[in-house]
Amino acid sequence: MDTTDVRILSAHSALPGPPVDNAALARRFGMEPMWEQWVDAFVGTRTRHLAVNLDSGEVLSTLADLGEIAGRRALAAAGVTADEIDVMVLATATPDMLMPATVNMIAERLGIDGISTYQLQSGCSGAVAALDIGMRLLRTGGYRNALVLGGDVCAKHFDLGVDLRDLPPAQLVNVVLFGDGAGAAVLTTDPVPGTSVLRHVLNRLTGLNRAPGQIIEWFGAAELKPGRPALSEDYKAIEQSVPAMATEIGKELLDHLGWAETDVDYLLPPQLSGRMTARIVEQLGLPTAEEITCVEETGNTGNALPFLQLERTLPRMVTGDRAIGIAVESSKWIKAGFALERV
Amino acid sequence: MDTTDVRILSAHSALPGPPVDNAALARRFGMEPMWEQWVDAFVGTRTRHLAVNLDSGEVLSTLADLGEIAGRRALAAAGVTADEIDVMVLATATPDMLMPATVNMIAERLGIDGISTYQLQSGCSGAVAALDIGMRLLRTGGYRNALVLGGDVCAKHFDLGVDLRDLPPAQLVNVVLFGDGAGAAVLTTDPVPGTSVLRHVLNRLTGLNRAPGQIIEWFGAAELKPGRPALSEDYKAIEQSVPAMATEIGKELLDHLGWAETDVDYLLPPQLSGRMTARIVEQLGLPTAEEITCVEETGNTGNALPFLQLERTLPRMVTGDRAIGIAVESSKWIKAGFALERV
Repeated sequence: MDTTDVRILSAHSALPGPPVDNAALARRFGMEPMWEQWVDAFVGTRTRHLAVNLDSGEVLSTLADLGEIAGRRALAAAGVTADEIDVMVLATATPDMLMPATVNMIAERLGIDGISTYQLQSGCSGAVAALDIGMRLLRTGGYRNALVLGGDVCAKHFDLGVDLRDLPPAQLVNVVLFGDGAGAAVLTTDPVPGTSVLRHVLNRLTGLNRAPGQIIEWFGAAELKPGRPALSEDYKAIEQSVPAMATEIGKELLDHLGWAETDVDYLLPPQLSGRMTARIVEQLGLPTAEEITCVEETGNTGNALPFLQLERTLPRMVTGDRAIGIAVESSKWIKAGFALERV
Repeated sequence: MDTTDVRILSAHSALPGPPVDNAALARRFGMEPMWEQWVDAFVGTRTRHLAVNLDSGEVLSTLADLGEIAGRRALAAAGVTADEIDVMVLATATPDMLMPATVNMIAERLGIDGISTYQLQSGCSGAVAALDIGMRLLRTGGYRNALVLGGDVCAKHFDLGVDLRDLPPAQLVNVVLFGDGAGAAVLTTDPVPGTSVLRHVLNRLTGLNRAPGQIIEWFGAAELKPGRPALSEDYKAIEQSVPAMATEIGKELLDHLGWAETDVDYLLPPQLSGRMTARIVEQLGLPTAEEITCVEETGNTGNALPFLQLERTLPRMVTGDRAIGIAVESSKWIKAGFALERV
């Protein structure tokens, strides 16, 4: 078992278009002003970035577009060139196509070739799974640098023809919760001074005998008939389970590393909604940790999210600082998290 | 870099329904008897298993259904129980849904929980990528046993309403080339006597500045309008590139291991079609190798295929026997292969 230190050199992101606020969503879908206030008060997401123009329906960005930009930024910030990347991992729930894998289209655009690439099909815990695989590959492969990405673009499922007034509340909330985006990080086994070591990654399925909390469908050529719902969520199960799971993940990370609650300087919590994040942070009870939250501005960006949080965290960390990130995938209930220490 | 020996304890598969022959396809889609002869002569695929009933349109098996059966068979043959599995990897181009990942639905059915699971989005090289990840995870994780799966079910894209006489030949051939199925293997770090060691896995993107040879689309809820093609292939590029790439993969595997061409006892070649396999085997020039081919009976089963070949190979291997498997993914041109040695 190889325990070579793996460091995160950089984390960057790419978000499509300008921020879309709740008022713009309300106008576009003919909702009452009341609705906007309801979203502000009960969801807590003020803006999000969308890969589709709400008026024209034009797709502004594909996942490959956003992944390319995030990847380029992460490489530049790390001072690592495309030909120094030895392995590449992308996590997404919404690949541009089933084939080629989007990771390989991003590789093409970055001029990366001749290496092993992997694309993980995953939801909210996907970015952590990608960090996990990136770290493990660096430890076994004789590899030096990994480019790890995550992102989601929901444009294919964003039906601009829908009348929101006809939707039940459970489907209505999907329109405001999610945002599109991609993120990327460069990992290395190089002992670069002044960087953060990935001390531990947790990635554990805990879904046995539990109905999925979130389902996202895809449709084939034989199924192109209007009116099929693509996304369904059990918000009651999510509300009940996610805060407790987040607390368990936090405890498990600290126990594994022998860190005390007061050792944590930064907390990167799950970001399903502003309201739920607030509950999770309260329950976690990490008194010294500064919370790194972006859900109010970006919505839940799925596989991109931990990269957005890392982008905000890494520059603030000084020697000795410790951070933990927590992600819960409610599809089949995956507990995920990671711990960083600036050395 | 950890070089612990990883062994394949077992490989098994699951195929849906009875074999469907070319005459049945011809009858169902109103083709001339000539067409059946053309398929026999120029494609070389005689039967395939389909997850959809050609007459009723009923879906007979999902990927989770087939993965469960293949996984159960592989576990039983390995003498490993579900709770002894430490990590699980599934490769597929055609997940049942975008979320939950199908790997987690298969885990549920097998009673597997509390471990890390990964689902790779991949095409014809996916099973090799899954073996690759499985081997690397076993080497870093303090893990003992991995369940590695691959499979594809094309039912969502199988349009029974299409009139084959209206299709151009390039689309017509898709109907006969592919078959549905899943496969599974149990990998271990246990030095079980009389098993085969995975000596090397190659998994390399070589797609820079090359147009994709194969594209598979998925459609979102906003795109449910009939008539959109989901699958497109550049057969000319595939015909030109795949045999040469296969030869390069074979040479690279042998060079890496220091094996001579006459050291290879079994060859598991790519299986796009019977005709192309014959050309590839001829070009590879491995005089002592017995070819393990199933394409005539199963069609190209995508991510399942190498497991189908391993299922036929492992029981025949005796101490000292060496086998190489070769896969080419024409989507973004991935070279993949693996080498086994019975110890």
